[in-house]
Amino acid sequence: MGKTAKETEDNAIQDKTMDALLLENLKSLFNPTTVAVIGASEKPDKLGFHVMKSLKLGNFRGMILPVNPGAERIMGIRALPSISDYRDPIDLAVIVLPSKSVPKIFEECIRKGIKGIVLITAGFKEIDDPKGAELQDSLAKLANEAHIPVIGPNTFGMINLHQSLNASFTPEFSMLQEGGISLVSQSGGMSHLLAFMGMRQQAGMSKIIGLGNRLNVDFAEMVTFLMDDAETRVISLYIEGLENPGKLIQAANKKRGIKPIVAYKTGQATSGDRASLSHTGSMAGNQSIYEGALRQAGITCVHNAESLLDTSRALAMCPPLKGNRIAILSGQAGPGMAACDVCESEGLEVTSFSSGTQKAINDLLPPLALRTNPVDMGPAWYDSVAIAGIMRAVMEDPRVDGIILLMMFASANKEAVAGMSAFLIESRQKKPVVACLSAPPGIWDDQVLGLEKKGALINVPTPERAARSMANLWEYKTMIDRGPYESNTCAH
Amino acid sequence: MGKTAKETEDNAIQDKTMDALLLENLKSLFNPTTVAVIGASEKPDKLGFHVMKSLKLGNFRGMILPVNPGAERIMGIRALPSISDYRDPIDLAVIVLPSKSVPKIFEECIRKGIKGIVLITAGFKEIDDPKGAELQDSLAKLANEAHIPVIGPNTFGMINLHQSLNASFTPEFSMLQEGGISLVSQSGGMSHLLAFMGMRQQAGMSKIIGLGNRLNVDFAEMVTFLMDDAETRVISLYIEGLENPGKLIQAANKKRGIKPIVAYKTGQATSGDRASLSHTGSMAGNQSIYEGALRQAGITCVHNAESLLDTSRALAMCPPLKGNRIAILSGQAGPGMAACDVCESEGLEVTSFSSGTQKAINDLLPPLALRTNPVDMGPAWYDSVAIAGIMRAVMEDPRVDGIILLMMFASANKEAVAGMSAFLIESRQKKPVVACLSAPPGIWDDQVLGLEKKGALINVPTPERAARSMANLWEYKTMIDRGPYESNTCAH
Repeated sequence: MGKTAKETEDNAIQDKTMDALLLENLKSLFNPTTVAVIGASEKPDKLGFHVMKSLKLGNFRGMILPVNPGAERIMGIRALPSISDYRDPIDLAVIVLPSKSVPKIFEECIRKGIKGIVLITAGFKEIDDPKGAELQDSLAKLANEAHIPVIGPNTFGMINLHQSLNASFTPEFSMLQEGGISLVSQSGGMSHLLAFMGMRQQAGMSKIIGLGNRLNVDFAEMVTFLMDDAETRVISLYIEGLENPGKLIQAANKKRGIKPIVAYKTGQATSGDRASLSHTGSMAGNQSIYEGALRQAGITCVHNAESLLDTSRALAMCPPLKGNRIAILSGQAGPGMAACDVCESEGLEVTSFSSGTQKAINDLLPPLALRTNPVDMGPAWYDSVAIAGIMRAVMEDPRVDGIILLMMFASANKEAVAGMSAFLIESRQKKPVVACLSAPPGIWDDQVLGLEKKGALINVPTPERAARSMANLWEYKTMIDRGPYESNTCAH
Repeated sequence: MGKTAKETEDNAIQDKTMDALLLENLKSLFNPTTVAVIGASEKPDKLGFHVMKSLKLGNFRGMILPVNPGAERIMGIRALPSISDYRDPIDLAVIVLPSKSVPKIFEECIRKGIKGIVLITAGFKEIDDPKGAELQDSLAKLANEAHIPVIGPNTFGMINLHQSLNASFTPEFSMLQEGGISLVSQSGGMSHLLAFMGMRQQAGMSKIIGLGNRLNVDFAEMVTFLMDDAETRVISLYIEGLENPGKLIQAANKKRGIKPIVAYKTGQATSGDRASLSHTGSMAGNQSIYEGALRQAGITCVHNAESLLDTSRALAMCPPLKGNRIAILSGQAGPGMAACDVCESEGLEVTSFSSGTQKAINDLLPPLALRTNPVDMGPAWYDSVAIAGIMRAVMEDPRVDGIILLMMFASANKEAVAGMSAFLIESRQKKPVVACLSAPPGIWDDQVLGLEKKGALINVPTPERAARSMANLWEYKTMIDRGPYESNTCAH
């Protein structure tokens, strides 16, 4: 806030090398042995209560230390008056005290040799009062001198599912499945929305990080760290505004091609800019300039929350899409048409099959079916051998790079998932399979979930979203092939 | 299929007056006292089994007559060898016999004085063999002479939730909630997808009609019928291709403004055209020409399945949106920004409040909150009086036409829904409230569902979809105001 263009440029140059010690300490922050909750509470109207609940219910396997001078025990654990009263090392401090008491706590953390801080407390750079920014700057000075990475302030916290570490005020984050997507977000609300969507769609998550006001850990630091994090397969960014876009661009470019980055950037609206300024202390800025820069850094841009999640899941779970020739296998023609529309408008080719494949399909489907691509497998509903035969021919066809599989299931055709499961699992990871297998709630979810867990496919709610996710796999592939610093069109 | 442009034009002129007797008989078709299932079966691999199951499990209150010369009883009901063996009148016949036996059955139905037919059987105009089209034409001749409306052939059937009439091969359709949306669809797969989505999103449905090959009941007939159907508030169309677009345009224009029509048209892809030709016997045709014509007829166009459902729900449940000035009330700033972006790009104004409203909000929220529109109500999470106070001020502000309400709930803020419910219910139907209230699965669904059932709001899965639904309410309003036959931009 309040930086001139010159200052921003200077920053971009200065920040070319990030603080290596701080990055090293991020490892301890995300993989701590001992976590202190400074401001832990037994009272449900305090965030310190919810953070304790998150750590306990999340089954964190390390040591939890509630710190509160006014309490003997919190949630059954003996409380400490201060972190200085603990003799062994503490890796991570989660701070949920009022802002004015935070500088003293920071000094205490530094004396204690703490490796990382999650600062949930609000009331810093995001408030109208300039004292908020001053306070944040003084904290940044302290943390930077000690090379301590700070997530926040003004954040819900973070979660690392691979460590069962829920260092947030939202215990429900622990309901997420462990997986390969790490979400770095400038908005707590959007993190919660994406997490709740992810729970419904079986998204496998590695970490969720609420950057908040980004004291000294910004997108650039997180991208650099996550590129080397073995538990992260895809880095998902929710961005509103950046003081220093060059730093993120540079970080992304430096590790380009190691793993995919997907970004959803909001803040194109003038009214939205006001919101961003207030809630994380930065202007959202010009949308097209941002997107151009992100794309140049090899980042796949998407334009809504659902697409961020779908695309991240596809990139995390599917094998690479090697070309743009797509087969659409549909149990009903209508959804196939909807997928066709999106494929063609997004640069995918609804390919013609090789003659061998076409012959195999013609042998398996009656003449009344649409046997060319998009294939209407409807007439083979009751013939799981035929369904598997079509899938096999298409999976092995060198003219097909990826498969969109669309089927609406009700009791009249409920055996179909079981019929094709064996083949899908057997040939998993050969080519990307993005599916929309839809059924009434609660009926066949388990079968589809089983296919997802075994890496046979990803399942999304509509044919259009299946096609768009496939298109974004292609977008990623073309971006990587093209190499650094060339402009290209953006995914949707 | 195979019609010349000249023939199509002739049709458009001939069809200016629809068959009034046929339309009258549609009432009996959708509200029958007695339903015969011709081809009823006890065998789960027969569609005649699933149709019987649909009628029985759907708790149809009228008489169900299974017809099958080879069975004594089917699902506990005495079977008849033929409909002629039943002495009292039969309103509706659902036919699930092989195509070649259908002409004989049609003649029998006519003799019996049946009012309407649902012809599930496939193997007519949609097959490669010209005999299919010939057979369909001969059936059309029989049905038209007798003024009997026929849903199908080549369809899953139809359902009328207000009569607990599930005349389809999908018993799960009866899981849907009764409500005001009537879906008329050219695709069985898309109907199933939309129904399954509707189950998850508490969409209130009136009817779902699978047009299939449209023997003599096409979009035009259904629009005309549903415009006068007291149980239908919104007509939703899923369109792939039309032999005679003029007839639908004319039907929609004739009843323009009585109730909203929303259409999702696929088939812009060249590959999709092949699919449409095959599965319902018509070319999908030029997308932009279609959409222009639909818009001219006062039909709101949307571009994916989710938007068709969201927009239909908003139009069915919300009071009319009288202007384009929107308030965004968000529990967290990020989702508010995402909604802002969509609002501004879709022609909605993220309005400035009247001074009284702004003062009321300033009094209720601390300075650290974003108090102008979009309002970040986060700092008032624990103060349900403040939340209700902000909502009241905004609801009563003459500068606000509609409200987008966005809140992500987890256990730390779980009281918030309860806190605002009373006010939302009290002021229901004053202005449209489109919400994205999101929580982990299964936790606060009941509370939000309660608000939807009482007509206080509609809830959609993301902020972007909330904003787009609101934009489509505005699109509908401007289209109605503008009057017939003027081109305008299409909703998304």
